[in-house]
Amino acid sequence: MRLIGPENIEDIALGAAVLGTGGGGDPYIGKLMAIQSIREFGPVRLVEPDEIPDDSMVAHSAMMGAPTVMVEKLPNGREIVNAFRALEAYLGRTLDYTTSAEAGGLNSTMPFTVAARLGIPMVDADGMGRAFPELQMVTPTMYGIAATPMAIADDKGNSAIINAVSNRWTETMARTVTIDMGSTALIALYPMTGRQLKEAMVPGTLSKAEAIGRAIREAKVRHRDPIETVAEVTGGAVVFHGKVADVQRRTEGGFARGEATFAGTGDDEGSRLTLQFQNENLVAARDGEIVVSVPDLITVLDAETGHPITTEGLRYGFRVVVLGIPCYEKWRTPAGLALVGPRYFGYDVDYVPVEQRFARGGRP
Amino acid sequence: MRLIGPENIEDIALGAAVLGTGGGGDPYIGKLMAIQSIREFGPVRLVEPDEIPDDSMVAHSAMMGAPTVMVEKLPNGREIVNAFRALEAYLGRTLDYTTSAEAGGLNSTMPFTVAARLGIPMVDADGMGRAFPELQMVTPTMYGIAATPMAIADDKGNSAIINAVSNRWTETMARTVTIDMGSTALIALYPMTGRQLKEAMVPGTLSKAEAIGRAIREAKVRHRDPIETVAEVTGGAVVFHGKVADVQRRTEGGFARGEATFAGTGDDEGSRLTLQFQNENLVAARDGEIVVSVPDLITVLDAETGHPITTEGLRYGFRVVVLGIPCYEKWRTPAGLALVGPRYFGYDVDYVPVEQRFARGGRP
Repeated sequence: MRLIGPENIEDIALGAAVLGTGGGGDPYIGKLMAIQSIREFGPVRLVEPDEIPDDSMVAHSAMMGAPTVMVEKLPNGREIVNAFRALEAYLGRTLDYTTSAEAGGLNSTMPFTVAARLGIPMVDADGMGRAFPELQMVTPTMYGIAATPMAIADDKGNSAIINAVSNRWTETMARTVTIDMGSTALIALYPMTGRQLKEAMVPGTLSKAEAIGRAIREAKVRHRDPIETVAEVTGGAVVFHGKVADVQRRTEGGFARGEATFAGTGDDEGSRLTLQFQNENLVAARDGEIVVSVPDLITVLDAETGHPITTEGLRYGFRVVVLGIPCYEKWRTPAGLALVGPRYFGYDVDYVPVEQRFARGGRP
Repeated sequence: MRLIGPENIEDIALGAAVLGTGGGGDPYIGKLMAIQSIREFGPVRLVEPDEIPDDSMVAHSAMMGAPTVMVEKLPNGREIVNAFRALEAYLGRTLDYTTSAEAGGLNSTMPFTVAARLGIPMVDADGMGRAFPELQMVTPTMYGIAATPMAIADDKGNSAIINAVSNRWTETMARTVTIDMGSTALIALYPMTGRQLKEAMVPGTLSKAEAIGRAIREAKVRHRDPIETVAEVTGGAVVFHGKVADVQRRTEGGFARGEATFAGTGDDEGSRLTLQFQNENLVAARDGEIVVSVPDLITVLDAETGHPITTEGLRYGFRVVVLGIPCYEKWRTPAGLALVGPRYFGYDVDYVPVEQRFARGGRP
């Protein structure tokens, strides 16, 4: 167990935005909410999975919806607590811990708001080791753990409890309720025991995010190359150097969908890289050929600072480096690829691990 | 208290289809389900509102969605019981009675399935005295009674509990969940005390539906004019004689919307009447001018048999009589008209009670 204060949150939010692969919400919003809650209610106890009792109860706290909308519609801290309490009321018991659904700018820090305000510890884990756009895309789904009962709440006071026959159905129902609620909603879901968490979740994700964020921050102070630093701490590889040539986004079916095109610079002069995203970056195609795909992480970094850029943050002319980062190992199993592989998202290509095409830290 | 058997259900379904004003679901489906449940579990005790204790708990049982879809997707009796039980589980107590949300072909008889299968009595009342397309359009809304907590279930095993800040919000959320569930869902809602029911519901609707249904059936045996019989028993007026010239329907936003045009016959030769509907008939315009509107009832009867025809049942060439029937008196108050008057549905006309334009049983 260790205590998490505002300075830790800064690093976690920054590092989680790297793992967020362009989505996972605006790191600034999540950070603000968590820091404000910690200032008001005190530091949050972060515990490792093996510290929690097998029979304790945990649930994920998160925001659902299109990140493009979240930027315009700032949640206060009470709504996410309302969702968490609605789930407790439905279960007829208190939840002992909360944890992250995904590592993303917003959803890595969202549970800190719940933990601070309710005075419960948060578990250092998440369900993805990165961010994915749909709620069934978590390792617990592979272990047969239900997303439901799930609570969903909005800023107006509306809420719902969903019980579905599969996590894919939960996604469908929760997504349309989210759209009704204004394309963004607060959710509490995947209630599970401590024992289930230890078996099924990705351990240590928040510490990993914090290490990435700290490395980026310290690179500046120590005059290290920030891109090399991020590649090193994430085990990632440089996929492309370029400038933003075009970004197209639309909010569709409760998601931010679109694509970004980069014109190559330096060694990549004359080539183009296109990223397609559904909240998160799904595939990167170099001159028309997919070279990195889900479940591996595709992250766009500012070429100078090494700071991650979300899909909403991409602007014409930005100089960037695109990084490919190996995903959590369980995603590379047949069950993992069925849930989050390229074919699930409609790309008719086999998954090739990023390190088979790109040397760690370097180029193919 | 009296016992309701299969023969009563036949009359109730037929009469409720008259009150259903073209919507409220297919009377045949609701009838089949109720009769099958009564055959299997025994007759249902129908009690009048003043027979139930003030502190007893009641909820509406109904089907939600587009009637056009219901015809293709027959529910079995268990799904509606699942919705009712999900509401009981959420409330943490059993419900003592069920009752009708609306008088319509399907939803007048749907609660009998719940009552028969759970062995609880049904209250002779409904929330509309007719059918309306949206769930907040019930007299309890005027009395500040919440539709939530509300349970919604489908045929696959998915369910949700909705808590909303207003009955209009409940409608919005439940409607999109219904669309997810395949455009038709089973619901249990408006949990209220016996005291609230007595104050806020429309009493005696099922007995009224039964009287209408029986009158139509007996008219045939006694060689009476069936149209006159229906006008008499409902207090309605003949608005138009004609033949179906055109029907346009589309399923949109979870509703069956469209319009039907009738070419005048007999005294109405040379005129046209157009009905616009959203599940239920909303307005009737004669040669372009609205002559009957919500909240009054507009019902299309088969000119020969006096049987009501739902909007899905209308076919080119059918000879019909259009009847206008005065609505329940509370709908004519300012609060009632705000909920279900012509302006709510987008028609910029004042409501004129049908009996001011058409003499009872006769013509203007």
